[in-house]
Amino acid sequence: MRIGDRSWRTLWPDDDEKAVRVIDQTKLPDAFETVRLETVGEVAKAIRTMVVRGAPLIGVTAAYGMALALRDDGSDASLESARSLLLASRPTAVNLRWAVDRVARAVAALEPKERGEAAWGLGAALADEDVAACASIGKHGAELLMPLVERAGGRPLRVLTHCNAGWLATVDRGTALSPVYELFDRGVPIEVWVDETRPRDQGYLTAWELGEHGVPYTLIADNAGGHLMQRGQVDVCIVGSDRTTRRGDVCNKIGTYLKALAAKDNGLPFYAAVPASTIDLTLTSGDEIEIEERDPREVTRRPWVKAQNPAFDVTPSHLVTAVITEHGVALPNEASLREVLSRRG
Amino acid sequence: MRIGDRSWRTLWPDDDEKAVRVIDQTKLPDAFETVRLETVGEVAKAIRTMVVRGAPLIGVTAAYGMALALRDDGSDASLESARSLLLASRPTAVNLRWAVDRVARAVAALEPKERGEAAWGLGAALADEDVAACASIGKHGAELLMPLVERAGGRPLRVLTHCNAGWLATVDRGTALSPVYELFDRGVPIEVWVDETRPRDQGYLTAWELGEHGVPYTLIADNAGGHLMQRGQVDVCIVGSDRTTRRGDVCNKIGTYLKALAAKDNGLPFYAAVPASTIDLTLTSGDEIEIEERDPREVTRRPWVKAQNPAFDVTPSHLVTAVITEHGVALPNEASLREVLSRRG
Repeated sequence: MRIGDRSWRTLWPDDDEKAVRVIDQTKLPDAFETVRLETVGEVAKAIRTMVVRGAPLIGVTAAYGMALALRDDGSDASLESARSLLLASRPTAVNLRWAVDRVARAVAALEPKERGEAAWGLGAALADEDVAACASIGKHGAELLMPLVERAGGRPLRVLTHCNAGWLATVDRGTALSPVYELFDRGVPIEVWVDETRPRDQGYLTAWELGEHGVPYTLIADNAGGHLMQRGQVDVCIVGSDRTTRRGDVCNKIGTYLKALAAKDNGLPFYAAVPASTIDLTLTSGDEIEIEERDPREVTRRPWVKAQNPAFDVTPSHLVTAVITEHGVALPNEASLREVLSRRG
Repeated sequence: MRIGDRSWRTLWPDDDEKAVRVIDQTKLPDAFETVRLETVGEVAKAIRTMVVRGAPLIGVTAAYGMALALRDDGSDASLESARSLLLASRPTAVNLRWAVDRVARAVAALEPKERGEAAWGLGAALADEDVAACASIGKHGAELLMPLVERAGGRPLRVLTHCNAGWLATVDRGTALSPVYELFDRGVPIEVWVDETRPRDQGYLTAWELGEHGVPYTLIADNAGGHLMQRGQVDVCIVGSDRTTRRGDVCNKIGTYLKALAAKDNGLPFYAAVPASTIDLTLTSGDEIEIEERDPREVTRRPWVKAQNPAFDVTPSHLVTAVITEHGVALPNEASLREVLSRRG
């Protein structure tokens, strides 16, 4: 996506093809810096410290982490230790496991010395797949939103989003924001309410990327969205997801559940935009998902204040209007999700 | 209440009785400073900039503001101009109007030169009334909570609160936190989940005052409360209110509505603890309440980020379990609220 007049992805093989380079999201929006990751250890740390974040981007970055480890040492022991290291970096996003296991399976039958290059190629393929999936989510989502655009009758469609599920959370284009970019690029008037998203303030990432693309937005405290819905200033909520269960329970950034409750209470549609790779068919209920507890110092830097910092919550399927995937739009139930997923090639 | 080993109120007549002195709440919790307010202009500014905040405390401070103006000039013109200045300082809290009008009515029939001292005396009376009301809220609230304490069977009762409705929001003792202090002082094990309360971070005031009193607490991001309720870690929500309508719609700090939705969704009681002076019988619906829009720079200090900052929201009465007043506990409907209010002497 655009930053000024140049196009970027969030990660790419560095010029010498010996490392991967990523945008440092801990520095945004105040500074734009890129970081070179040369080892699986550096990749795991970048995921843990949220230099890269967002379920889709975490998955692709982890795949490159596997490749870096296997290039260095293609043995089974190296593969297994890279896998463990990466899986421990963040527990909630299912993409991490999905991507790591996809690499592990793909290289299992290969000679150790061939594994590094194969994994590197797979990393590149996963990155391209992610971009295509996100673009497709944008098209399906835009179609879903068109009736709301028509109902808005010429005034801007007002979308509320939580956290950052834009292009910065993916390799490019985004999940929740992909339909927004798609409609904006078609000339549809659209505005975004951006939740600040404490404690990590990912709303600033969303504000920054929307601003760079020219999409009008307004940042609000996480507390404000319910009130805006009550006063008729929101048309639709769209969020991403780190893991969606087979019955459509949506695990996403802490606070998502509160916005889904408010959307329901105000009769507004609440959509989750999720790549198929984030749907975990092994789980029925979101209660089964391990919720990452992060450092309380992310909430407060005052050492005398005792704090707690759960990073995700689960929005139960009955609060979800629909799930937008790259294969089409599913209702939040097992039959519909399986049907849509069956459309994959 | 205690700070270290000394007892304080949030405001008191200064030693020379020529000004009122208040705790500067914009400096807390990092520094404890008091400020002397000598004129009605200084009082209005202290209210507007939240040096003093919390509906009950705003009311009493405004009464002293009227007294300072009338001591300086007891004319009708002076009274009217002080009244206008104070009413414009913050629009949502009904106590401001209640206190200012109470002073205006009390002095109307007096000679201009007598008005200042009469108003000063009334300020002192309102302060004492507020302390008594808050203490009584604590007793009624504690009684209401006892069945939950018993159900907790020895483990601490876990209360979630939003914003600061503790002693700092009143002259002393607090509204939402008064039942907490009452139970704690009786030796009942109790813990408090404290919402950070962006954008002004009043949760730190709550954390600080609970800590000074020795009550265990944990600060959380505003996003976290719903998740904690889903996972069975909250027993009850208690909040204050800046204005409650006759049918029991509760206007309180922005974000309160989201916690009330989550309490309902998880079958938890949601109580508003409100002095009778915050109940506005002239209003049926909370939709009629003017919601203060504060400076967007309270949300973000990054000038390139467009922001919006509504300061309050309305929790509709169907999400409110009961309203705790100094005269007893009311159900959120007109008949019950009127019955409880009729118990005033």
